[in-house]
Amino acid sequence: MKAIVNVSLKTGVLDSQGKAVHHALESLHFSNVNDVRIGKQIVLNLDEADETKAMADVTKMCEELLANTVIEDYQIELIK
Amino acid sequence: MKAIVNVSLKTGVLDSQGKAVHHALESLHFSNVNDVRIGKQIVLNLDEADETKAMADVTKMCEELLANTVIEDYQIELIK
Repeated sequence: MKAIVNVSLKTGVLDSQGKAVHHALESLHFSNVNDVRIGKQIVLNLDEADETKAMADVTKMCEELLANTVIEDYQIELIK
Repeated sequence: MKAIVNVSLKTGVLDSQGKAVHHALESLHFSNVNDVRIGKQIVLNLDEADETKAMADVTKMCEELLANTVIEDYQIELIK
């Protein structure tokens, strides 16, 4: 089973990388961009057939390592 | 309109960040992970109503700035 974890900064947390990319896009004359936010996409290849167990495991991984839950949110998507 | 761009390393390109996370997960006793790949998720808030124009713009942004097409692939998803 494959798990896709998207980790993004919480709303309100300053995204300096996003701001830099937004500025760079403006320099390249892309004027129709209002906002840029940058997050991480983590693709895990799991040796686990049970969906409930996989979701529990990946949630634990996010809480313990993959996301900093003080400033980041995460979303988990499982693909069979 | 919102555009979500997922930038990931091409298959075969060494993902040292993914390797490090995989190793860290093993240290935390998550033994059912076979592989970890880490990419970027870029969320663009566009001031553009036309879907075709938006897709063309975002593709151009990827080619010029957001992705290094020598070693990275990108996927674009538009959300109204």
